[in-house]
Amino acid sequence: MQKILIVGGVAGGASAAARARRLSESAEIIVFERGPYVSFANCGLPYHLGGEIAERDALLLHTPESLSARFGIDVRVNSEVQAIDRTSKTVAVHNRQTGETYAEPYDALILAPGAAPIRPPLAGLDDSRVFTLRNIPDLDRLMAALTPEIKTVSVVGAGFIGLETVEALRHRGVQVHLIERGPQVLAPLDAEMTAPLSATLKAHGVSLFLGESLQQVTTGGALQLHLESGKVISSDLIVLAIGVRPESALARAAGLDIGITGGVLVDNQQRTSDSAIYAVGDVVEVRHVVDGKPVLLPLAGPANRQGRIAADTVFGRSSHYRGSQGTAICKVFEQTAASTGLNEKALQAAGIAYRKLYLHAGDHAGYYPGATPVSLKILFAPDSGRLLGAQAVGEKGVDKRIDVLAVALQAGLTVDDLAEMELSYAPPYGSAKDVVNLAGMAAQNLQEGLLAIAQPEEIAVAAAQGVQIIDVREPEEIMAGMLPGARNLPLSELRRLLPHLPKGLPVIVYCQVGLRGYIAQRFLAQQGYQVRSLNGGYKTWSMWQQMQ
Amino acid sequence: MQKILIVGGVAGGASAAARARRLSESAEIIVFERGPYVSFANCGLPYHLGGEIAERDALLLHTPESLSARFGIDVRVNSEVQAIDRTSKTVAVHNRQTGETYAEPYDALILAPGAAPIRPPLAGLDDSRVFTLRNIPDLDRLMAALTPEIKTVSVVGAGFIGLETVEALRHRGVQVHLIERGPQVLAPLDAEMTAPLSATLKAHGVSLFLGESLQQVTTGGALQLHLESGKVISSDLIVLAIGVRPESALARAAGLDIGITGGVLVDNQQRTSDSAIYAVGDVVEVRHVVDGKPVLLPLAGPANRQGRIAADTVFGRSSHYRGSQGTAICKVFEQTAASTGLNEKALQAAGIAYRKLYLHAGDHAGYYPGATPVSLKILFAPDSGRLLGAQAVGEKGVDKRIDVLAVALQAGLTVDDLAEMELSYAPPYGSAKDVVNLAGMAAQNLQEGLLAIAQPEEIAVAAAQGVQIIDVREPEEIMAGMLPGARNLPLSELRRLLPHLPKGLPVIVYCQVGLRGYIAQRFLAQQGYQVRSLNGGYKTWSMWQQMQ
Repeated sequence: MQKILIVGGVAGGASAAARARRLSESAEIIVFERGPYVSFANCGLPYHLGGEIAERDALLLHTPESLSARFGIDVRVNSEVQAIDRTSKTVAVHNRQTGETYAEPYDALILAPGAAPIRPPLAGLDDSRVFTLRNIPDLDRLMAALTPEIKTVSVVGAGFIGLETVEALRHRGVQVHLIERGPQVLAPLDAEMTAPLSATLKAHGVSLFLGESLQQVTTGGALQLHLESGKVISSDLIVLAIGVRPESALARAAGLDIGITGGVLVDNQQRTSDSAIYAVGDVVEVRHVVDGKPVLLPLAGPANRQGRIAADTVFGRSSHYRGSQGTAICKVFEQTAASTGLNEKALQAAGIAYRKLYLHAGDHAGYYPGATPVSLKILFAPDSGRLLGAQAVGEKGVDKRIDVLAVALQAGLTVDDLAEMELSYAPPYGSAKDVVNLAGMAAQNLQEGLLAIAQPEEIAVAAAQGVQIIDVREPEEIMAGMLPGARNLPLSELRRLLPHLPKGLPVIVYCQVGLRGYIAQRFLAQQGYQVRSLNGGYKTWSMWQQMQ
Repeated sequence: MQKILIVGGVAGGASAAARARRLSESAEIIVFERGPYVSFANCGLPYHLGGEIAERDALLLHTPESLSARFGIDVRVNSEVQAIDRTSKTVAVHNRQTGETYAEPYDALILAPGAAPIRPPLAGLDDSRVFTLRNIPDLDRLMAALTPEIKTVSVVGAGFIGLETVEALRHRGVQVHLIERGPQVLAPLDAEMTAPLSATLKAHGVSLFLGESLQQVTTGGALQLHLESGKVISSDLIVLAIGVRPESALARAAGLDIGITGGVLVDNQQRTSDSAIYAVGDVVEVRHVVDGKPVLLPLAGPANRQGRIAADTVFGRSSHYRGSQGTAICKVFEQTAASTGLNEKALQAAGIAYRKLYLHAGDHAGYYPGATPVSLKILFAPDSGRLLGAQAVGEKGVDKRIDVLAVALQAGLTVDDLAEMELSYAPPYGSAKDVVNLAGMAAQNLQEGLLAIAQPEEIAVAAAQGVQIIDVREPEEIMAGMLPGARNLPLSELRRLLPHLPKGLPVIVYCQVGLRGYIAQRFLAQQGYQVRSLNGGYKTWSMWQQMQ
């Protein structure tokens, strides 16, 4: 009879335990969970904080008793595995309730301890009014602290958890400061794609401090957050959402190989450098499918799949993990932002050649009520046209487009494939040419030289160099603004007004989102103009401009 | 200078015209549209009928004037191309307003006449109170006829247009009879997957007549629809939505090759058997990507893409059409149903080996409010695991899952790939294991022999043969019904109650949707039982049962 010990009873650990039982009724399976709860919905924590998930119990997906009854698994909560003796194949378990410590032998050991919130070593962060939000006790503590007297909370870090926490706190009516060291919220996206997120945060009354690094907190009276810029923010509570780092101390102490990212090294069957020990979830380093580089991508979906694979490997099955592509999504008030694959920053940093395109189109047919724009950025290889990454932001249909593109990326599809995708279309759901199709078609045009583009970041220099900037929107559209130095020659009049456009100087044309700009560019190019179309039109330029 | 004539100015024709102009400013481009409108939103017609699209003008995407101004295209409405002289490369054009007929020469001719509603040759269907809904004049006529005196309308045909028209008429407060010759609504899905659609139609007061063939209509006084069963339905108006057939008469008269489906034969660059003539959209026969067979799939997305490809071919570009996979979607009141690839009926008819799985899971995490179930059916090849088709029905998230699976099918992905898909997950949008992942994982289990399934259609015979039917749901779940002859042994008690389950007879276990049934099956199999799990659980059985 095989004895399987699992360290950690949430996503990856719980998946491994359930799969192991389905594969073997005879195995003895023990799950050690350091905290008081197993199999809880940690992705749901901010939503209980905000009140959308009314019942705390809804977050508790299983209890030790329900797992025992269903799977015959021995689940031990409040039980911290403190050491691994690889020679004797035993772990030392500390019972945090009784205080006793005991040894438990294993044939196979699966490590799924997750990741812990980063707490930078800054003065004042050890104050009891400084919180993190990673598990149920964290949530309980924060909610207990949010008494009616608490008027202002500062959230440090504008990643997924930070943004979700900000929204939750605003739902509770608390004043919120959001402090982010980087120049943008939600670093997995490129900066310009986050402009609508910054805008919606401000619209919902969040004080947003981008590019502001927290230096220290003084704690006499209200908390005072001192930023590198010299600004001081007063706050009743602080939530740290700077990120997480793998809980790799146990593995490290046992001498298991650790990757350059700090995550536990595993092969594609979740084996560590000790063939009797496996690791899954946020604690492991994964390969990014796009560039093959080692990364930390603490995500629930991969954790669950890795747990299943580890159990398979224990029982000699051949399933394997293919790497992660970093698909992620975040709700920010009425906006949704999502991405998959590599972003432009990462491609630049890695020196990978790419092309980029911006598209803006309705989530469904414009003539059917309720359509809202989806802003999409795709990144693809200049030679092969293979998709490298995608980002989208909008009110509706963002998850669908990123999921479609995540599958495309998984399958190694090219922009030609995007153009040909046969997606479901009826007016309430999409368009005959979905924004993903449009992205593929535009990329084909770019690849074939039909489309020549100018990037938003080139406009200022081009205008200064005398390039003619031509706005081809209709006059009523330009009320909300034009590019600096632009002239309006509406597409509907362009054929007639052509004599007014000198041929001697290069031209950049643009419309609202890029389609009419492309039509104008094709027209002018064939008339002998040296002409490019602004990538993604005025809308993309505005997003870019807001982030300067 | 090249002269391009295009017959038909809606989806495929309009796309061809716009693309041709972007490729060539020097070409002369003339679009002939038989009706009074070009580039209208025919997919939107039912939604204006129902009032969701309030303004009729919203359906008119372009006018001849706007196309002329933007693209320099000569658009001639009310102009019917009546004949093609392939020798002289001219068409005969009949101006339906002036009555004159003239010849127009071409270098390239693109046929995009679409498809026409089928009007069976039954007595009474020539009555002025019998309508179709294919274009703006159809819509205008029907809306003019829907005076307050009209209390009852019969819709004949329960395909996409029929169902959308039924919903629109109910929104207008009219009593609706829906008559369908086949045993189910929405034939692109398999019957059991349409059970929720039939249920919602009835819940919205629609009188549904399935398996009822219209024989004749008597027209003295109210219209009397005589069905083959002997039933007679009285109705103030009739809308025929039986389907469409390609408008191939012009091509046929010109001697162009016609496929076995009745659609115009084209190569993968949209060339007909005459190399100067191209055809696109609903008039052409396409190859189904799954089995390579010729089919008619009148869909807007393919029409638009084919129009673009035809223009490319005219100008010597190498883009080509890869075939259609029949991705389609339909809103039926609060339900959405969608499919891609081949259904089980088609696989059976073609003699293609397949396996099928049913999954039911929330459109997003169950602990986040507002989750509704998505019911998914996947069909895949027994040997390779390659996806062959998928169908889904539910209130939300159906379009996303079918789009994800449409891309999987396009890319030739297998069930292993479905299990590994990294889809966007946060509680408002999905689950860490999406229903598509679950389908892939279940299929892997089936392929590897871990999962053994029984189909809903086997239950009655199995029970009669003494197979033990075991319901492993909790007692409170079985109030709404159990399978005939089933016994309740809740999963939470199964380990304890095992002595009460005799080993001599085979067992079929089931839960609500299949997951707990699988867990029970794995448990029992390892205890030595001959056991299978009901595919998709009680929910699938109920859907199947409702359609018997």
